[in-house]
Amino acid sequence: MPLMPITDSMFLMVESREHPMHVGGLQLFRKPEDAGPDYLSEIRRRLLDRSEVRRAFRRRPARPVNTMGYAAWAEDVELELDYHFRHSALPQPGRIRELLELTGRWHSTLLDRHRPLWEVHLVEGLRDDRFAMYSKVHHALMDGVSALRQMQATLSESPDERDSPPPWGGPAATKGVRRSRRDPVSLLTGARQSLSQLAKLPGAAVKVATEAFREHSLTLPTQAPKTMLNVPIGGARRFAAQSWSLDRVRQVATAAGVSRNDVVLAMCSGALRDYLIEQRALPDTAMVAMVPVSMRKPVETGASSGNAVGALLCNLATDRSDPAERLKLIHQSMRNAKRIFKDLTPVQALILSGINVAPLGASTIPGFVNNTRPPFNLVISNVPGPRKTMYWNGAQLDGVYPASVLLDGQALNITLTSNGDNLDFGITGCRRSVPHLQRILTHLDTALAELESAVA
Amino acid sequence: MPLMPITDSMFLMVESREHPMHVGGLQLFRKPEDAGPDYLSEIRRRLLDRSEVRRAFRRRPARPVNTMGYAAWAEDVELELDYHFRHSALPQPGRIRELLELTGRWHSTLLDRHRPLWEVHLVEGLRDDRFAMYSKVHHALMDGVSALRQMQATLSESPDERDSPPPWGGPAATKGVRRSRRDPVSLLTGARQSLSQLAKLPGAAVKVATEAFREHSLTLPTQAPKTMLNVPIGGARRFAAQSWSLDRVRQVATAAGVSRNDVVLAMCSGALRDYLIEQRALPDTAMVAMVPVSMRKPVETGASSGNAVGALLCNLATDRSDPAERLKLIHQSMRNAKRIFKDLTPVQALILSGINVAPLGASTIPGFVNNTRPPFNLVISNVPGPRKTMYWNGAQLDGVYPASVLLDGQALNITLTSNGDNLDFGITGCRRSVPHLQRILTHLDTALAELESAVA
Repeated sequence: MPLMPITDSMFLMVESREHPMHVGGLQLFRKPEDAGPDYLSEIRRRLLDRSEVRRAFRRRPARPVNTMGYAAWAEDVELELDYHFRHSALPQPGRIRELLELTGRWHSTLLDRHRPLWEVHLVEGLRDDRFAMYSKVHHALMDGVSALRQMQATLSESPDERDSPPPWGGPAATKGVRRSRRDPVSLLTGARQSLSQLAKLPGAAVKVATEAFREHSLTLPTQAPKTMLNVPIGGARRFAAQSWSLDRVRQVATAAGVSRNDVVLAMCSGALRDYLIEQRALPDTAMVAMVPVSMRKPVETGASSGNAVGALLCNLATDRSDPAERLKLIHQSMRNAKRIFKDLTPVQALILSGINVAPLGASTIPGFVNNTRPPFNLVISNVPGPRKTMYWNGAQLDGVYPASVLLDGQALNITLTSNGDNLDFGITGCRRSVPHLQRILTHLDTALAELESAVA
Repeated sequence: MPLMPITDSMFLMVESREHPMHVGGLQLFRKPEDAGPDYLSEIRRRLLDRSEVRRAFRRRPARPVNTMGYAAWAEDVELELDYHFRHSALPQPGRIRELLELTGRWHSTLLDRHRPLWEVHLVEGLRDDRFAMYSKVHHALMDGVSALRQMQATLSESPDERDSPPPWGGPAATKGVRRSRRDPVSLLTGARQSLSQLAKLPGAAVKVATEAFREHSLTLPTQAPKTMLNVPIGGARRFAAQSWSLDRVRQVATAAGVSRNDVVLAMCSGALRDYLIEQRALPDTAMVAMVPVSMRKPVETGASSGNAVGALLCNLATDRSDPAERLKLIHQSMRNAKRIFKDLTPVQALILSGINVAPLGASTIPGFVNNTRPPFNLVISNVPGPRKTMYWNGAQLDGVYPASVLLDGQALNITLTSNGDNLDFGITGCRRSVPHLQRILTHLDTALAELESAVA
C-alpha cells in the first residue's frame, strides 16, 4: 500500500458533510454533424468496455471509515466502472439552466470512500445538439489543476479522431499536454515532495498554516472586509458557468496596458460589486481576492524545481464605482502582491494557495470564520487551458468550467480556464449563503462591457 | 425549539457516510389519457407555487454539525422548496432499469442537515406514458411506514381530482387514510411516547438494545447462519423493484391454508435460496428473517394504545429444496415466533423491530457484525397500503416501492406494500456486498410460480 503524502491525506481528514473536498469540471461538447441517434450510447458502451483504468483512478483510501490515519492508498481490485461512469439526463426543457442545476446537485454530494474517489457523468438531454460531461475527483487524489489537465489529456486537435480515451483510461496528463510557464501543476508537485519531509502528523500542517496566516496578516498591504461571502457554509452547492471571448479580454488588456489576468480580475470585481449592491451587502472597503499564480524562485534558494507556486492577495477595489479606476488599482495591487509573497517557502505557498490548499489551511484554523476580518474574501483562480479548438470523439469542446472546493468563510469561488478562443468561467457557491448565484454571470457580462467602454 | 425524542435523535447520531439513515419510496404513475406535453411541468410549477409546507417538512436539526446532542429541532425560516423538490430525468432508453439505477444513486447520498431532512424527485423520461416520484425522508423525521403513509395521504380514489397535494403540503397522514389492524404506525407512536421517559442519554438506548439482543439470543428457537448478506457495508446502494398480483399470492395462501404473509415470506425464501446458490453462498442451515408485525397486547399490561409492535424471527427454511416444505416450515415458524416475542416491552419491541430501529440497535452494539452468527439474516417487512386503485393528479398509481435503511451486518432489505390489486416489492442492497441485486426479482418470480405449482 503506497503511503499517502500528508498533503493528500489531510483532504480526507478535514472533509465533512459541509465541506466536500472534491474538485469538479463541467465540459460542454457539440456533437459532430454526422452523429446518429446512438452517438452517445455508443461512446458510453465503448468506454465501459475499455478495461484499462489508470492507477490513480483505481486507488481508494485503505481505511475508509476512520477519520484519522489515512496514511495509505489501497488498490480497488473489483472496480465497478459503471458505478463511477454514470449516464445522466437533463429534464425538460433541457437548457443550460437545467444542466447547471444538476451540476450543483452532483457537486454537493460526498464521494464514496469505499471506492476510488471519482465520478464521471455523461449527460444527455440538452435541447440543442450538445452533450455534457461532469467529472468529480477527490482533492486527495488530485488538485483542481491536475484534474483539468486530466480531462484535457483526453482531447484531440482533430475532429476525425473517434476513439478518444476516457479521463480514467487516457494517457497520463503529463504527456502530450502543452505546459505554459504559468502552469502551477509541476510546481505543486515540487512543493508536495518537499512536504514529505514533514512529520506525518496533521498538527504540523495546521501549525504551518497558522504561522503563514499570522505572518501574512502582519505584512498585508490591505485588509479584507467581512462580507456575506465569509460565513460558515452548508453542504449544498450552486454552480454557474459561462464563456466569454478571449479576444475581448485581450483587447481591453492591450488598450489599458495591463495583463489579461488583470482584466479578468476587474471583470470579477465589477461583477462582485454589482452582485453585492443587489444583495444590499457591499462592504465600504475594498474586497480582497486570493489569486494562485506560479512564480519563479530566485536561483539561490536551490529549490530543485526552480519554481514555486504563489498565493497573491489582490485588492479588488470594489469600493470604487469607476471601472477604469478599478482596473488600474487591480493592476497595481497584482504588481505589489508579487513582491510581498516572493519569499514564501514552498510549504507556506502551498498552504496559502487558494484552489489547492486554502480549504485545508483555513478550515483547520480555529476561529477563522469568526474573525471580524477574513484574510481574503474569495479565491479567483485562472488556470491555463488548451489554446486550440479541441475535440473528443469528434465532438467540439464548447466549454470547460471548473467547479471548486468551498470552505467555512469562503462561500464563493471563481475559477476560469482558457479554451481555444474563449475564457470559461466556473462559479461555485454555497447554496444557502450565496443566493441567486446565476446573477453573477449577468454582472460579469456587464463588467466586461463597461471595461470595453472605459478603455475605448 | 421542540425537543427531539431520543428515538429520533439517535438516528442522527448513528448516521455516517456508510449508513445513511433515510427511508425512501419510489412511486410509479401512469399519465392520464388527456395529459398534454406540459402535464408534468405544470404539476411541478403548481406544486412549487404552493406555499404551505407542513411542520414536519420545515424542521431541521438545530445543530447540524455536531454529532452529539441533537436534542432539538429548529424551524427552517427560509425553506428553499426548489432544493427539496427536484426535477429529474432518465437517460435513454428510459426503461425501468434506468429508473432503478438512478433511484439507487439518490438513495445513496446523505441528506443536508442544514435543511429540512427530505427530498422529492419528480422523474420524467420513462419511455412509456409513465412518470415516477422518488421521495427520501430522514428516519429522524419519520419512519418508513409513516413516510409511506405520507405519500398515500396525497392520493385520491378519483382520477378526476387534478389538484392533488404534494407530500410536504398535503393533509397529515393520520387523516383520511384507512388503517388496517396490522398497521404498526400508531403502535410505534405509542412506543415512542413511552421512550420519552428514558434518560436523554444515548447510552440508555444502547443498553436496552444490548439487553434485548442478549435475551433474544438465549430464547431463539433457531440461530441464523453467517451469510454474505451479514457483512460490513459501504455507502452505495442498489435498488430493485417489481409488482406481483395480490390475487396470485392470495390463491396460494388459500390453497395451502396459510396467511398471505407466509406466502410472501416463502417467495422471499425461494428467491434468496436461488440467489445464494447462484452466488455459491447458500448457507447449510436455514436463514432467519426479522419480520416486523403489530400485535395486540394482553389487556392486563394497561398500555393505553392496546397494541404493540412486535419483531418476529422467521425460519426461512432456505436449506430445503422443496417449495411446499419451505412454505409449511415458514408458516409454523411464524406461529411459534409470535408466542416468543409476545412479552416484549414496547421499548424492546421498538428497538428490535426491523425497518424502524434495527439499524440503531445493531450498529451501536460493538462486535455485532463480527459475531460468527448474526441474530437474523435480513429484514422482510410487509406494510399495508391502499386497497383501491389510487390516483395523483389524475395519474394512476402503478406501483409504490419502499427503499429502506441498511446497516453493518444487514446488507439487504426487502420491504413490500400492497397497492390495489398488487404487491409491490422494494429491495434495497449494499452495492458492493450484494452484486446483481436485480437477479432477486427474477428469483421472486420463479419462487411464486413454484409455489403455485406446489399447491395446485
